[in-house]
Amino acid sequence: MAQGSMGTGSDSSSGARSWAQRLSALPLPSLPVLDWGRRYNRNTLVGDGVAALIVTIMLIPQSLAYALLAGLPPEVGLYASVAPLLLYAVFGSSRVLAVGPVAVVSLMTAAAVGEHAAAGTAAYWQVAITLAFLSGAMLLLMGVLRLGFLANFLSHPVISGFISASGLLIAASQLKTLMGVKAEGHNLIELLGSLASQATHTHWLTLGVGLATTAFLFWVRKGLKPLLVGWGLGPRLADVIAKAGPVAAIAVTTGLAWWLGWQAQGMKIVGSIPQGLPPLTAPSWDLALWRELAVPALLISVVGFVESVSVGQTLAAKRRQRIEPDQELVALGASNLGAAFSGGFPVTGGFARSVVNFDAGAQTPAAGVYTAGGILLASLFLTPALYYLPQATLAATIIVAVLSLVDFSIFKRTWAYSKPDFAAVAATLLATLALGVETGLVVGVGVSLALYMFRTSRPHMAEVGLLPGTEHFRNVLRYPVRTSPQLLSLRVDESLYFANARSLEDRINDAVASRPELRHVVLQCSAINDIDASALESLEAIDARLKDAGVLLHLSEVKGPVMDRLRTTELLQHLRGQVFISQFQAVQALTPEVIQPPAQKASLQA
Amino acid sequence: MAQGSMGTGSDSSSGARSWAQRLSALPLPSLPVLDWGRRYNRNTLVGDGVAALIVTIMLIPQSLAYALLAGLPPEVGLYASVAPLLLYAVFGSSRVLAVGPVAVVSLMTAAAVGEHAAAGTAAYWQVAITLAFLSGAMLLLMGVLRLGFLANFLSHPVISGFISASGLLIAASQLKTLMGVKAEGHNLIELLGSLASQATHTHWLTLGVGLATTAFLFWVRKGLKPLLVGWGLGPRLADVIAKAGPVAAIAVTTGLAWWLGWQAQGMKIVGSIPQGLPPLTAPSWDLALWRELAVPALLISVVGFVESVSVGQTLAAKRRQRIEPDQELVALGASNLGAAFSGGFPVTGGFARSVVNFDAGAQTPAAGVYTAGGILLASLFLTPALYYLPQATLAATIIVAVLSLVDFSIFKRTWAYSKPDFAAVAATLLATLALGVETGLVVGVGVSLALYMFRTSRPHMAEVGLLPGTEHFRNVLRYPVRTSPQLLSLRVDESLYFANARSLEDRINDAVASRPELRHVVLQCSAINDIDASALESLEAIDARLKDAGVLLHLSEVKGPVMDRLRTTELLQHLRGQVFISQFQAVQALTPEVIQPPAQKASLQA
Repeated sequence: MAQGSMGTGSDSSSGARSWAQRLSALPLPSLPVLDWGRRYNRNTLVGDGVAALIVTIMLIPQSLAYALLAGLPPEVGLYASVAPLLLYAVFGSSRVLAVGPVAVVSLMTAAAVGEHAAAGTAAYWQVAITLAFLSGAMLLLMGVLRLGFLANFLSHPVISGFISASGLLIAASQLKTLMGVKAEGHNLIELLGSLASQATHTHWLTLGVGLATTAFLFWVRKGLKPLLVGWGLGPRLADVIAKAGPVAAIAVTTGLAWWLGWQAQGMKIVGSIPQGLPPLTAPSWDLALWRELAVPALLISVVGFVESVSVGQTLAAKRRQRIEPDQELVALGASNLGAAFSGGFPVTGGFARSVVNFDAGAQTPAAGVYTAGGILLASLFLTPALYYLPQATLAATIIVAVLSLVDFSIFKRTWAYSKPDFAAVAATLLATLALGVETGLVVGVGVSLALYMFRTSRPHMAEVGLLPGTEHFRNVLRYPVRTSPQLLSLRVDESLYFANARSLEDRINDAVASRPELRHVVLQCSAINDIDASALESLEAIDARLKDAGVLLHLSEVKGPVMDRLRTTELLQHLRGQVFISQFQAVQALTPEVIQPPAQKASLQA
Repeated sequence: MAQGSMGTGSDSSSGARSWAQRLSALPLPSLPVLDWGRRYNRNTLVGDGVAALIVTIMLIPQSLAYALLAGLPPEVGLYASVAPLLLYAVFGSSRVLAVGPVAVVSLMTAAAVGEHAAAGTAAYWQVAITLAFLSGAMLLLMGVLRLGFLANFLSHPVISGFISASGLLIAASQLKTLMGVKAEGHNLIELLGSLASQATHTHWLTLGVGLATTAFLFWVRKGLKPLLVGWGLGPRLADVIAKAGPVAAIAVTTGLAWWLGWQAQGMKIVGSIPQGLPPLTAPSWDLALWRELAVPALLISVVGFVESVSVGQTLAAKRRQRIEPDQELVALGASNLGAAFSGGFPVTGGFARSVVNFDAGAQTPAAGVYTAGGILLASLFLTPALYYLPQATLAATIIVAVLSLVDFSIFKRTWAYSKPDFAAVAATLLATLALGVETGLVVGVGVSLALYMFRTSRPHMAEVGLLPGTEHFRNVLRYPVRTSPQLLSLRVDESLYFANARSLEDRINDAVASRPELRHVVLQCSAINDIDASALESLEAIDARLKDAGVLLHLSEVKGPVMDRLRTTELLQHLRGQVFISQFQAVQALTPEVIQPPAQKASLQA
């Protein structure tokens, strides 16, 4: 298979594309459906159908629960699971992503909408619809402008801290429903304070049902599948049955509530849910409201996109497929616009349901279309059956789902690997818990950017010397190397830019002031990937100051692209020192006595 | 001079010091005066004395003018030139820096104080004193905590753009004094608009005197010295005479104003300046005011520090001396606190006067002490002589001084060298002109940080292949190199961190999806100086996805410090691929057919 082929690679790097090229490459939204739709056959139909059935069963309780979490009537959750699924099937580049209401985005929706209307009012729903519209428009715009890279500024530690904190916040927010009391708050302190003050009003029957359901769901999650497998069921079937746990909990508690008349005993139930197709709705066109929702909509868009893309990429890679992040932005944008015009609220690709969809054998986005059909049937015919469903059951569903998001192992891992990353996780988690989701996210991004800048602003610099008998140069503090008092070899392990240019100046100034014999400074540039205009000026300043002090500045091992740009500058034209291919050649030319062994040198002198 | 010495270098890098070490190294403010004071002798006395005389002559008009620019009575400029000079002489690490009121800081003072009081009132002066106090306290704190590196986040392009824009703003703000009208504004648009509306009220005599003085000062600056040298004067003396130009302008216009009775004709003069020592003052202790002044005080501190340190470093290097940035923070902090308690306003090291001090032969900071004495004498005895000094003369002095700050060559240079840096200069200049000094500075820093993040978030990645006959690997798009369809060699020219980790994931996902024969991915890490926790997770995700796709991930040429940290992680424990010393060894081990020439291989097969 040997071959000396040239240029087999794709484009050298997306970073190398100029903006002009990027703009000229603006896509008309592409339609992945045209690709997979053409090859649709009976095999894919069966796989998709089975997967859709399982996801539908899983999605019904989740949709209801997340709508309540977002402060909306339960049927809104069903509405938000129809149009978005259909639109994602048309535009999405992942074969198996399942789009709909998800926990964290629902929490963020509650936080954002709660600023503008009281939960349970028509105005509240209208603001939620507007939020979905703005988020959809932003995602679509980011996709068309190929701004998907913006999501990269949410670092993994920040996402981890944020998701864990959100899980805790969501669980805390559901405690009130579990206890049958009223409580409010956008952060953990407010929530727990409010709950504590209401503890005396706890509705004990509700709490009992809620805790029992929670315990049952945890058991279903952890203990049912092994039990079923132990009974001789296939692991696949055992899995499907375990996924139906929440449906069973709903069926049983609804039946009991109806039979035992729990509503009359003061338990809160879901009550009447309107039957019918998702309504045709439109966002508010109030520009003042848009302005106030802009930041929350952006945060929701970015968080939703990151969550969706990471699950999509993980699943696509398992089948050597790929997803196109910018196309995902378009698809999620369309999904959210769809939600806005069909009575929904902000949606994104969900982790758990996409994994289920994948595991159940979904082959194409048609599975999403069938799931949408299933949800549609539910909203047409199933809602009367949910009249007696205790709200505490849905709260239990949410608590069990979100506690799996809480993962403190990131603390241990980042502590061991990187203290700045640990600081970013801790800051995000604490800020989210103490100040709420939006502030928490902004604080996390700010802290991680600041720490990155701090790190690169203090680059590792090492004075290097020649390792005897080799042409290699190593840190004088770590190796027994040979140096000359007349020559300083300095290696900088970072690109030079404004934030670290001055520390190079300081370092060289120190050396010049403290070494009267110094005649040459050689900057070994092997780890310098870029030199910006500030660093260039610093180099010019260093050269000028060294000149005043009678010292020559030289460069060595400058990378090709860096050299290409330096060639056009005054620095290289005025530089009295030389540019060497290697540090060894520099030392050979400037202080050859370092290379010659002293013994040999002595004989030459003799 | 050959020697095999070990560890001749200083501390390997300031960046390598831990915070704990840094805190334990917290200095009691050191006193450079103890060093140079001990060795003071007659030679240094003469040098310092001559320099002090020249700087005093230069500083008197500047002090008066910059106080007016800051919206303060002219004598405040003299007050701000006594205590700060004395304190800098005690704490400063530069031998020749001359501290006092400077143009840009005075403009920033006017912008900040103008928000809280009307110019000319006692309250205004009190706010200016408080601003000096806060700025001094911040500088001192930054010095003690060794936070001097924060100033590095002001990039050279941002400083250039800001200083040029400030120069234009200051010149524009002086036009009203030159025209003898009232005008207001914190940005160029407001200023010019206000001037235009007042143009009909122009006081023509004032304008005539102002323009004549401006023309005279420009001529003194450019044409006088060559003329004097042509007349046979020594260049040193010619220089001193040229520096006295502003004093001559003041003497002549003051005399004319008195003789011709210009005040009675409606010209604005400086009027009565109180004679006496600088008063003992104290800042306001109003915490609400402190909170509002905090941001301006920080910006003034940082700008002042940057200006001061860069001139100090440039001059120190000429004599192979050095200045200690953190010590400079302490000294400037003490100077500003001194200004606050002696009726002054924010001060810093001035460029022009420090250069003059240096050129005139100042040897030690004692020159500053003598200069302070000269200014003290002026404020005790000279002020009555300035009664008739036209304000337009001072405006002309300022205009001529600041227009030398305006330098548009930075546009040309950054355009040629680096478009992102050009964008940063342009954004800073435009924002400063259009929105004022504080907003301009913040915009500049924000834009330069964002562009840096953007650049590093899209790292240069190259697929590399073997250059036939060598062990070198080069970009497949640029060189005729040998590759194998089973192996992808990828070189990333940037440290891996959260903002660029995902683009590496994308690149590898693409390759896996588009190359069905791929079996190995080798990441050449020679240019990777750091891998943060996000990038580590991305590498783990890449490894997991490659595993699912039947592809092995390998690393090559990992740097020592990066490897040290990777060793502790699960990535290396779970990695099924290998870590190679060099890319060549990787290819040799994985796809040896790439290295073996086809002919030879054919013979082996035969």
